[in-house]
Amino acid sequence: MNKRVLITGASGFLGRACLPYLLERGFEIHAVASREENFLAASEVSWHVCDLLDGEQTQKLTAQLRPEFLLHTAWCPAVPGEFWNDPSNPIWVRASLQLLEAFAAAGGTRVAMVGTCAEYDWSEGICHEANTPLVGRATYGECKLALFLASRSLAKSLDVSLAWGRIFFLYGPHEHPRRLVSSITRALLQDQTASCSSGEQQRDFLHIEDAASALVATLDSQVQGAVNIASGQAVAIKTMAVQLAKLIGKSELLALGALPSSAGEPPLLIGDAGRLREEVLWVPRYDLHSGLQATIEWWKDNL
Amino acid sequence: MNKRVLITGASGFLGRACLPYLLERGFEIHAVASREENFLAASEVSWHVCDLLDGEQTQKLTAQLRPEFLLHTAWCPAVPGEFWNDPSNPIWVRASLQLLEAFAAAGGTRVAMVGTCAEYDWSEGICHEANTPLVGRATYGECKLALFLASRSLAKSLDVSLAWGRIFFLYGPHEHPRRLVSSITRALLQDQTASCSSGEQQRDFLHIEDAASALVATLDSQVQGAVNIASGQAVAIKTMAVQLAKLIGKSELLALGALPSSAGEPPLLIGDAGRLREEVLWVPRYDLHSGLQATIEWWKDNL
Repeated sequence: MNKRVLITGASGFLGRACLPYLLERGFEIHAVASREENFLAASEVSWHVCDLLDGEQTQKLTAQLRPEFLLHTAWCPAVPGEFWNDPSNPIWVRASLQLLEAFAAAGGTRVAMVGTCAEYDWSEGICHEANTPLVGRATYGECKLALFLASRSLAKSLDVSLAWGRIFFLYGPHEHPRRLVSSITRALLQDQTASCSSGEQQRDFLHIEDAASALVATLDSQVQGAVNIASGQAVAIKTMAVQLAKLIGKSELLALGALPSSAGEPPLLIGDAGRLREEVLWVPRYDLHSGLQATIEWWKDNL
Repeated sequence: MNKRVLITGASGFLGRACLPYLLERGFEIHAVASREENFLAASEVSWHVCDLLDGEQTQKLTAQLRPEFLLHTAWCPAVPGEFWNDPSNPIWVRASLQLLEAFAAAGGTRVAMVGTCAEYDWSEGICHEANTPLVGRATYGECKLALFLASRSLAKSLDVSLAWGRIFFLYGPHEHPRRLVSSITRALLQDQTASCSSGEQQRDFLHIEDAASALVATLDSQVQGAVNIASGQAVAIKTMAVQLAKLIGKSELLALGALPSSAGEPPLLIGDAGRLREEVLWVPRYDLHSGLQATIEWWKDNL
């Protein structure tokens, strides 16, 4: 059976982590990057350059490859802070709809796209696919929500099966060095003080490899519509920071409460993981301890 | 001052009604229709054939005309009942985003697009732009909501000023003959029984010319974001039917309650018209009596 998949954003934080799980599940992998410099040295992966914002290039690539599966992780650059209101967010809505049309026209049948917890109303605390109101937080959340609504309808029109994986909070190897876990880990490994807010707020964290395996499992299932790619568990930011400092053995360098807390941050934000566990039948490989330990080990080699 | 406007869907029910108001306000009108057969014999209007679902045609037309204003009324065919789940709804999301990009690239600065009351949560009764939850009713409502979210962000990215006119319930000349007011009027004018449901539900109706003048006034204002194109007044369906029958002088042919009521229809659905009246400074020309009378006169000539 031909399980040819086209994966976009394949050199990004989430996309690159999906490659081993696609291989494990027997996919023939065609990976898209916007520039040749971004190709990764992954074996058994065919790389292609394509500017997905150019509908004509997208159309040519899909017509040439005729993939049966599509895993769409590409979006505007994931620069911490900046992606929330990056002006290219709405361009990616249009480009993603063009990609879905081109994929279907080339005979594709099954898609997973990457959504976000920022589609949900954050005042709800626990986010459920079936009944938490969708509002769209900042430009990023609004544009992902717009794409969810339009691509769900479009998939139906084109007779394509579509799942929409809503990502929560990620950490792990290759994360942007300015993000929470990366920045604390890097500071402590370099014997520098890691300044944090008081970190009372609770979030839903997944190790990047678990998020990737969940997303690939979702693609490889029959599940349709929104699926939270989430642990379902609440962990306080300060608990993660304290755990990291202990594992590195530098608890004295952790300065909790040294930074002000961000305004407008909800105290609790987690995803209900029922659909992911019961319908996709996914189980995580990491718990918080082993996930953080693996992240520390990676940073030791990549400071 | 050059006030060149490109109007899409210009031969449709709403689009054609906008033409006199655009002229009245001094616009130089460029009208788009998908086929030459749809051109209208309107004076002082330049007609263009363009398949807006083809991004390349859209790009060529906007680059050639370089309009300063865009009034985007085109969408999938407004066949009663069918448009709710027409498979081309999501294609129009993609095409409309391409149109907005092409318009901005050609130097355009001000846009009004057509939204719908079906973006709102219909359990709320009175729909307010600022605080009624947006959920999207059926494919049509979901796709219009998707376009609202994406085009609002896109306009900001492209430095274009955008208003989004949410249409409620319309009636008047050129309405599809199977819609409520048209079908009752036509039946009674032909001495046939007009069968209706009991018609207890209250709706927000505008005469098509009032809706068009409100939409054009919105385009010609500085108002940004969503604006209800609504009367703000609740009228029971049965009140409209009784009024129509009286005006035609055929009350005995009106069979209220002869048809079952549709399931899932909310008892009240109206738009708050505060923004339209106070910010766009629009006033209607018709009340229910004069609007229905004008509609009857038109149908007498167009049965």
